[in-house]
Amino acid sequence: MHAEELLERLQAGELRLYELEDHADAEAAVEARRRYIAGETGVALSALEPYAFDASRATEKNVENMIGAVQVPLGVAGPVTVDGGAAAGECFLPLATTEGALVASVNRGLSAIEDAGGATARVTQSGMTRAPVFTVDGIAEAETVVEWVDANVDRLGEAAESTTSHGELLAVDPYVVGDNVYLRFVYDTKDAMGMNMATIATREAASLVEHETPAKLVALSGNLCTDKKPAAINAVEGRGRTVTADVVLDREVVEATLKTTPEAMAEGNTRKNLLGSAKAGSLGFNAQAANVVAAAFLATGQDEAQVVEGANAITTMDAREEGLYASVSLASLEVGTVGGGTGLAPQQAALELLGLAGGGDPPGSNADALAEVIAVGALAGELSLVAAFCARHLASAHEQLGR
Amino acid sequence: MHAEELLERLQAGELRLYELEDHADAEAAVEARRRYIAGETGVALSALEPYAFDASRATEKNVENMIGAVQVPLGVAGPVTVDGGAAAGECFLPLATTEGALVASVNRGLSAIEDAGGATARVTQSGMTRAPVFTVDGIAEAETVVEWVDANVDRLGEAAESTTSHGELLAVDPYVVGDNVYLRFVYDTKDAMGMNMATIATREAASLVEHETPAKLVALSGNLCTDKKPAAINAVEGRGRTVTADVVLDREVVEATLKTTPEAMAEGNTRKNLLGSAKAGSLGFNAQAANVVAAAFLATGQDEAQVVEGANAITTMDAREEGLYASVSLASLEVGTVGGGTGLAPQQAALELLGLAGGGDPPGSNADALAEVIAVGALAGELSLVAAFCARHLASAHEQLGR
Amino acid sequence: MHAEELLERLQAGELRLYELEDHADAEAAVEARRRYIAGETGVALSALEPYAFDASRATEKNVENMIGAVQVPLGVAGPVTVDGGAAAGECFLPLATTEGALVASVNRGLSAIEDAGGATARVTQSGMTRAPVFTVDGIAEAETVVEWVDANVDRLGEAAESTTSHGELLAVDPYVVGDNVYLRFVYDTKDAMGMNMATIATREAASLVEHETPAKLVALSGNLCTDKKPAAINAVEGRGRTVTADVVLDREVVEATLKTTPEAMAEGNTRKNLLGSAKAGSLGFNAQAANVVAAAFLATGQDEAQVVEGANAITTMDAREEGLYASVSLASLEVGTVGGGTGLAPQQAALELLGLAGGGDPPGSNADALAEVIAVGALAGELSLVAAFCARHLASAHEQLGR
Amino acid sequence: MHAEELLERLQAGELRLYELEDHADAEAAVEARRRYIAGETGVALSALEPYAFDASRATEKNVENMIGAVQVPLGVAGPVTVDGGAAAGECFLPLATTEGALVASVNRGLSAIEDAGGATARVTQSGMTRAPVFTVDGIAEAETVVEWVDANVDRLGEAAESTTSHGELLAVDPYVVGDNVYLRFVYDTKDAMGMNMATIATREAASLVEHETPAKLVALSGNLCTDKKPAAINAVEGRGRTVTADVVLDREVVEATLKTTPEAMAEGNTRKNLLGSAKAGSLGFNAQAANVVAAAFLATGQDEAQVVEGANAITTMDAREEGLYASVSLASLEVGTVGGGTGLAPQQAALELLGLAGGGDPPGSNADALAEVIAVGALAGELSLVAAFCARHLASAHEQLGR
Repeated sequence: MHAEELLERLQAGELRLYELEDHADAEAAVEARRRYIAGETGVALSALEPYAFDASRATEKNVENMIGAVQVPLGVAGPVTVDGGAAAGECFLPLATTEGALVASVNRGLSAIEDAGGATARVTQSGMTRAPVFTVDGIAEAETVVEWVDANVDRLGEAAESTTSHGELLAVDPYVVGDNVYLRFVYDTKDAMGMNMATIATREAASLVEHETPAKLVALSGNLCTDKKPAAINAVEGRGRTVTADVVLDREVVEATLKTTPEAMAEGNTRKNLLGSAKAGSLGFNAQAANVVAAAFLATGQDEAQVVEGANAITTMDAREEGLYASVSLASLEVGTVGGGTGLAPQQAALELLGLAGGGDPPGSNADALAEVIAVGALAGELSLVAAFCARHLASAHEQLGR
Repeated sequence: MHAEELLERLQAGELRLYELEDHADAEAAVEARRRYIAGETGVALSALEPYAFDASRATEKNVENMIGAVQVPLGVAGPVTVDGGAAAGECFLPLATTEGALVASVNRGLSAIEDAGGATARVTQSGMTRAPVFTVDGIAEAETVVEWVDANVDRLGEAAESTTSHGELLAVDPYVVGDNVYLRFVYDTKDAMGMNMATIATREAASLVEHETPAKLVALSGNLCTDKKPAAINAVEGRGRTVTADVVLDREVVEATLKTTPEAMAEGNTRKNLLGSAKAGSLGFNAQAANVVAAAFLATGQDEAQVVEGANAITTMDAREEGLYASVSLASLEVGTVGGGTGLAPQQAALELLGLAGGGDPPGSNADALAEVIAVGALAGELSLVAAFCARHLASAHEQLGR
Repeated sequence: MHAEELLERLQAGELRLYELEDHADAEAAVEARRRYIAGETGVALSALEPYAFDASRATEKNVENMIGAVQVPLGVAGPVTVDGGAAAGECFLPLATTEGALVASVNRGLSAIEDAGGATARVTQSGMTRAPVFTVDGIAEAETVVEWVDANVDRLGEAAESTTSHGELLAVDPYVVGDNVYLRFVYDTKDAMGMNMATIATREAASLVEHETPAKLVALSGNLCTDKKPAAINAVEGRGRTVTADVVLDREVVEATLKTTPEAMAEGNTRKNLLGSAKAGSLGFNAQAANVVAAAFLATGQDEAQVVEGANAITTMDAREEGLYASVSLASLEVGTVGGGTGLAPQQAALELLGLAGGGDPPGSNADALAEVIAVGALAGELSLVAAFCARHLASAHEQLGR
Repeated sequence: MHAEELLERLQAGELRLYELEDHADAEAAVEARRRYIAGETGVALSALEPYAFDASRATEKNVENMIGAVQVPLGVAGPVTVDGGAAAGECFLPLATTEGALVASVNRGLSAIEDAGGATARVTQSGMTRAPVFTVDGIAEAETVVEWVDANVDRLGEAAESTTSHGELLAVDPYVVGDNVYLRFVYDTKDAMGMNMATIATREAASLVEHETPAKLVALSGNLCTDKKPAAINAVEGRGRTVTADVVLDREVVEATLKTTPEAMAEGNTRKNLLGSAKAGSLGFNAQAANVVAAAFLATGQDEAQVVEGANAITTMDAREEGLYASVSLASLEVGTVGGGTGLAPQQAALELLGLAGGGDPPGSNADALAEVIAVGALAGELSLVAAFCARHLASAHEQLGR
């Protein structure tokens, strides 16, 4: 069926919005749907029309009721040299954003980092989690369930891993609240962000728990995972990649490039990022880590809602004799280089630009490297912003660049 | 200068990446820069090439070092009827995402809501904040600064409002930590998200504080704002719009459309969203509010990093005799219908689709309405997901739809 | 009736444990009850027998089913000079504790402070809160309730203040979560800690809300107060007294008395109290503020369970040219000099030792001064402990002193 | 030397306050010190004079600069039957408090629990923690330190356990923030609360880390322990005993004894303890757990400042067909039956009253049982208070009983 015919049948009430792909190819379905919505709302939606990815892939894997695409400007910052556990060498960082001044800010920070010969980065922990909640009849029964789980981690691993060719169960951590038992499953999901893989594997493991114990499954996610909510469990224990980037800037670089001093930056970081965040009851002790995470996530096809956990970051700055030591530690950066939005053409291109498209060798190394590169970008953003206000330039920069 | 010439001068080292717009129009600059990066990295970047917005606007206001655009699939959910304080009537909700099953999930929830005649929504509080940090010589001096501020809110208001034709200073809340004084300025920024307006206005007010008291400005943001970090101050006191959407679903709708019961959903909500989040040390007591916030933010040109605060949401479900009462209360939803990314053509079209592009009448009403519509979308996501796991459909839905 | 007879009737099942005071004076009742419990459990309880306070007062106001008293060793630290908003001059700080090394630690800190001529302290905010929760039928009704409250703060004040000769309603802050409306009432309760006064006053105000709006009271405390739970709302907004103490120690004092340097202490404070607490997801950014709060609370008859909120404290240390600036800011220190346990003879004596027993002139000044003195004690504990580990003495001190 | 002579030498400036025990027995030292302070302050301190414990033990292990004792009224609640993992049978709960109505409230709750045949309780996790902070030169070095630690847990265990005859190292969990490495050591400390044992053992293990890796110890506590601060890490991962108590009350009991319904209590618990605490940004989702913890701690010689962590508790209430399921889960209850204040005569008597004085058989079982009994007491407090407000009796109870 062509778009025109689909549209007519939509308007006649013979088809529902979500049924179009059953009767036509994706392009026609998208066009018909957009035209139908345009008609219903009286709004010309031509700006949503162009898209540079394969509609059939998008409608199968990424979106339903598609009517087109939204476009976000993409800039680059860098180049910067990263000495990582997985990342190595020089790269440009792609950033998709609508916030003026952000790319410029990161670029300025990367330039200072590059003057220091680049930044160091390491993934210090890795694991995607899913935590189903079960109900039992009371604490005595909860105890027996937890004992069974502790004694049967191997069987849970077999069950979980039967659903996946890549994933590996690393741990099962039990938490009890009254008649609720939460089991936090932790997986190595290699180059996939892994939420999907972890969910499917956990469903299988949860079936085993239900079969072998009196526990009854309530929900595959009991919010102790924790996915897409600001939660201390992620800030403390990590989720996805736990990654730190750091650098020592020579005193001269701080003075010449950043127009301030190591001492002023260390003090400014303490007063704003540490004490201000402490008083705010915050889980994020940084200046703008989420800005860089969000822009890099969008550029590379990550899950945009996981920016939430990406903001669980602590920035440190310390004046040393030779200059400024600065670091940013992101507790829960959930990234992948396969699956999700990474397969769409523009996002794929952004990953290729980083040399990190697809699965890594060894498996997991591409996602590790992506985490390290984003951490270096976040570090650049911190350096730039803290330096800026140390010279009281924040607001003027905003004004000029329309941020 | 044409793109070709720019590219040659880039390659010759005669121009820097960020200088191109000084020598050519935006389109040529973007093209040259993309081709340069493609050459440097050896990657074909053609998938980044097409964009449906005005490059000169984007490079002036939204991005630096632009090399193209990233495209995100856009779907619609609805229609749904919203009985809001500002929003009224029926609308489709545009959602940009790469997470399969999300639009379908929201759509299913909206369908249940529509069966109930639509949802109610209200913005219960509104105010954009900026909290500079000042340093004093000790607590005795801090006390005199705070006393001066309390006695001079009017003068601070005059100073702040001298920088803006729209903004209005609502309050100045002081916080003291040792020799640091944080002043949290709260503004009515009408239809703008307002971070920029608040920053500029606060700079002026901060100058007055510096002039009249011994306090010295350290940074225009002292992290008590709190912008783009998960912070209790926002979850408790709000930032941007504080908005609630709710609905009562008839028992029959819950059973027929959602395939479960009000009692099961209320219990599931408690065990997962309340108790699970409590045990996780979370500020978000919901199932997937961030998913809807992120997708709606991306569709309508909001600041993607502010999804962080958007996740500060509490979902309640209560079995009443007539059926299920469900609500979602978002403490800090930072939205605007003017400024930022809202002016790009696709994002503008998404706002038009909602009837909410540009400034509202009265001022602020469009942003209020946008907040209310997103809250209804979030409510739909909660209903759908909680209902799904109550019927144990979560994982299978994921598997089928590739989520 | 004498103790002997009471005991017999208890054993005969003719009286219940809690009925004894109805039939005899307090001393006899306590004795009979203790002997009865000793008989039932086969344990000699003579160590619980002696008490130095008036049993009839205690059984009327402080305890039920009394069987005797627990005794806690009381030490003194100081003297120290306090330059406060309310406190002035030199005092000894009474501390009741069973933790070896604590009094010595505070004493050492106070000695360093005294070398600097004493500490400065200020109460920067004051207010006891009670936050009832009401239920409404939905968000639309919640909006009307909040509007009524905002328009009728005067009437609420009249109602609340009709129940008290001292208390004063300062503010009513509304919070909405779905169909729940929380109203946080803030009171000036003068020299009383005020929880009781606030509860009674709020009950009256809540009746007015119920009478004039559709809201129905669920509970007089809706946990947004927040009493005796670790809650961000108290750490951010304060409860009871918000108080800071600070001092500048000469470089020589740090080196001679504390055996370290300002730079080492500032760095140690950042790594432990700021970064460590940040990573722990803490609301307390200090070393041992709760130790001092708990010991001073116990000595002076405060509510021992409110040590919870007393731990919401941030310690800062900053190396200045002249030496070390150190401060501790306690967000929510709930203290009184009248009511509660302050009227028992030993506790009263401890308050007299501070010159702060009973109501102050002006009202509230004694409780303010007590808060300031405790803050100075907490500052001493921070200085001493941070200095100790900077010289790696922590564990050896513990070992020697049995802590 | 007699007290009189000590006093004279104090007044002559020949002795310092803390030196008295070096020259006389404890009783004389305490008397002289008290008389000296009385003289200096002009306050009669006779109410502080009597104490029912051994002064020499107290001055050696529990306090410095002792001048007497503070006395706190002690009541009992119960009896109640506990079906615990370690606790078994019927007991009275000793509670030391100055808050009127508290013992009565717990007593009422225990009575309802006893009508149900008693409560069930289980310690689901146990471990005392100490987390030193080390500094390294950057993230690359941090990675090597963490790798060394992971590979040498056995050697760390040997080192730690060389300092103690009872303690056992259970785990070492590393956390990295920039150039800081925190190692959270977890110990089984049997019947001791164990903070002291853990500190000394960790010092030895930390020496090994310093010897074998480039890490330098900053402080034996890096605040990730977390001791005496409200911290998510304890609420999530536990510290001391993680313990739950629960009960099912027959519908008739709820109606007859508590004067309300299971449905009303479940709803009240959700609106106050879950939603109210959620909105407050709290780590405590309960009504008054800290009240019971504080009073039981004081009665049994626990560390009064650890009430802070004791407040990390979640209360659940669920209406079942047969009645009300209620539970309280305390994440971090730090208790011991040996060491600290447990050896003072009155506190010892209170432990004997529970049958839990001294070390248990097997070791650790007495502390486990104490945790379970306190949890049951906390459950009673929750039941009583929630029932009370469900019948709107809270304020009147307060008024009558002087709370």
